[in-house]
Amino acid sequence: MQAAIVGVHQTPFSANLAGSELALAAQVICAALRDAGLTPRDVDGLVKNAMEDTEEHALARSLGIPNLRWFSQVPYGGGASCGMVAQAAAAISAGLATTVVLWRVRKRASGGRPWAQRTGAVEGDAQFGAPYGLSRPSDQVALLMRRHMVEFGSTSAQLGAIAVACRAHAARNPRALKRQPVTLADHQASRPVSEPLRLLDCCLESDAAAAIVLTSLERARDTAQRAARVVAATQATGAQVGRMLDWHKPFPLESSGVAAAAALYRHAGIGPDDIDCAQLYDSFTPFVLFALEAYGFCPRGDGGHFAAAGHLQWPHGRLPINTHGGSLSEGYVQGMNHLIEAVRQLRGTSTCQVARVDHVLVTSSTSVPTSAVILGH
Amino acid sequence: MQAAIVGVHQTPFSANLAGSELALAAQVICAALRDAGLTPRDVDGLVKNAMEDTEEHALARSLGIPNLRWFSQVPYGGGASCGMVAQAAAAISAGLATTVVLWRVRKRASGGRPWAQRTGAVEGDAQFGAPYGLSRPSDQVALLMRRHMVEFGSTSAQLGAIAVACRAHAARNPRALKRQPVTLADHQASRPVSEPLRLLDCCLESDAAAAIVLTSLERARDTAQRAARVVAATQATGAQVGRMLDWHKPFPLESSGVAAAAALYRHAGIGPDDIDCAQLYDSFTPFVLFALEAYGFCPRGDGGHFAAAGHLQWPHGRLPINTHGGSLSEGYVQGMNHLIEAVRQLRGTSTCQVARVDHVLVTSSTSVPTSAVILGH
Repeated sequence: MQAAIVGVHQTPFSANLAGSELALAAQVICAALRDAGLTPRDVDGLVKNAMEDTEEHALARSLGIPNLRWFSQVPYGGGASCGMVAQAAAAISAGLATTVVLWRVRKRASGGRPWAQRTGAVEGDAQFGAPYGLSRPSDQVALLMRRHMVEFGSTSAQLGAIAVACRAHAARNPRALKRQPVTLADHQASRPVSEPLRLLDCCLESDAAAAIVLTSLERARDTAQRAARVVAATQATGAQVGRMLDWHKPFPLESSGVAAAAALYRHAGIGPDDIDCAQLYDSFTPFVLFALEAYGFCPRGDGGHFAAAGHLQWPHGRLPINTHGGSLSEGYVQGMNHLIEAVRQLRGTSTCQVARVDHVLVTSSTSVPTSAVILGH
Repeated sequence: MQAAIVGVHQTPFSANLAGSELALAAQVICAALRDAGLTPRDVDGLVKNAMEDTEEHALARSLGIPNLRWFSQVPYGGGASCGMVAQAAAAISAGLATTVVLWRVRKRASGGRPWAQRTGAVEGDAQFGAPYGLSRPSDQVALLMRRHMVEFGSTSAQLGAIAVACRAHAARNPRALKRQPVTLADHQASRPVSEPLRLLDCCLESDAAAAIVLTSLERARDTAQRAARVVAATQATGAQVGRMLDWHKPFPLESSGVAAAAALYRHAGIGPDDIDCAQLYDSFTPFVLFALEAYGFCPRGDGGHFAAAGHLQWPHGRLPINTHGGSLSEGYVQGMNHLIEAVRQLRGTSTCQVARVDHVLVTSSTSVPTSAVILGH
């Protein structure tokens, strides 16, 4: 790809962020552009998460963007963030835009939980789970994790190792919502949410806004910050495509991440051994475990052992993950903060800075059509 | 762009198309793939109009697509169709997909008109028009056309020339919903809908499904049909960006089409004189008049004269437009049929075939963020 991330910004995570989504989007985009040394007049593309309510033209009008030559939307919520990078990089690589901004404003903490408000008929893939009481995302992920336990003998304590690592990283990050370290015993003592998932297996619910600026490699040489190049990017559905419906698949534990990993490594010309740290989508701890297997860091079924062996923990683990604390401890904005942390690692400004970083893997949710990127120098 | 259209299909236009939108989408996509000599197993990308309800993963599952590596959505309804081509071509050019399908299923004729069903508070840009009775798209376009009449002396009869040309083309097209020729007198006698717009200034309301297949130039050499190359493609908002709100702009008659034209011709390295025929978005006749000016076929303000001089009519006009009959007479599917007709012109299979066709311009709606493409050999 002929594109790089040159500017990033996120608001503080909060239980109740003030301001309209349009105003927050405009503010966070301006800050990300300032980070890059650019202005709205440099922007000619926008990519948004299809769940975002703010319309592109309203944002362009508010920011004073002279003309948008590209505006695309990426569906599937938590599966979308890396796909937004892929689409921005494609627009730039194909010459259809020069500087593209991605943004996400999410006021879920103050705005309520849609599954708690659902009334009447359930449509789409959710109709296959709702009659059985699978109303929350955690219920659906719990079923998958139970299957992993039955097939491979993985345990709740192995999930705990993921939660503990993320919290240890958050403890060093002043932006993180939850900085109080937790132990494996704390994890095991936390209340069940949807068995086998406990409270500390679940991400935070937070309001936040985040923006990311990409431009061409040529232009990136003149921007204010060290650029994070898009080495490879892909979206993926895999052949067993569903939406929070994996337990109905012939192979429930083969997620869309397997297809994403194949395309990504092929495109990048590198493999899992070349990844120096990873920001893995972690709405729930099992997704980290599944990603470790899908992206080839350990054999299938061994994700739990890999986590429990301490490999995920900064600074000594083989693969430090979610060095900002992730969705589990920094805050949840559908993984936009994972992309921003990957950029920090490449700039050398993470609060859990990995010593030598050539390639960072970032993944999105894999229980829906997914996406992933590798960023590098 | 390194991409070409290699397969197209549309269902008959109808007042009430049977079948679910998912089933219709699957059927029309299979037919477009057959047209190209491809199968769903060749597909690795989908681009949809953001107004389309069918979800990408449901379609991929129904069709048996092995893995989608690209799925993007394009907002703004009638402004989207050419942008869908732009995004597919970008995905292919950037190497993120090989074969990308666009589709649109629209059951408006049988599904009802949203502006007739609107209740309660009006949000977004519509709030600036609704209190003044601007409830239908025709009301909004009527205001713009009145301004054009005041500023440039254009007339209803000039709009009539557009309607008459499109109907004459439809008369030769067995797919067209309206094939009975109309005269200028018929146009002038048709009832006012929103003055100065008459019934024959308004497009048909129809159910239809359409699909378009793009692949790489390399792969296009092996497909069943003569390929229509994407010479240039762009989306555009222009600086005065709004959504059906042009009358509030400092320069109401300078549409988003002006910005699209500049990017498109720059990218293509050709100008309006190189365009052999054009498929111009025509939900209402004034949009054709505005596009003639925006895309440089005549000076600003002269669109009416250009139309009335017979230049739009096949076979002898300087710029035959909407050689399938357009939205005004073939049917309305948000301009997907304009793209398909452009492909027919390049294949030499139009029922109003232009003698020598090197470049076809296709445009989308310009009262919203827009898009346009030039197709060629």
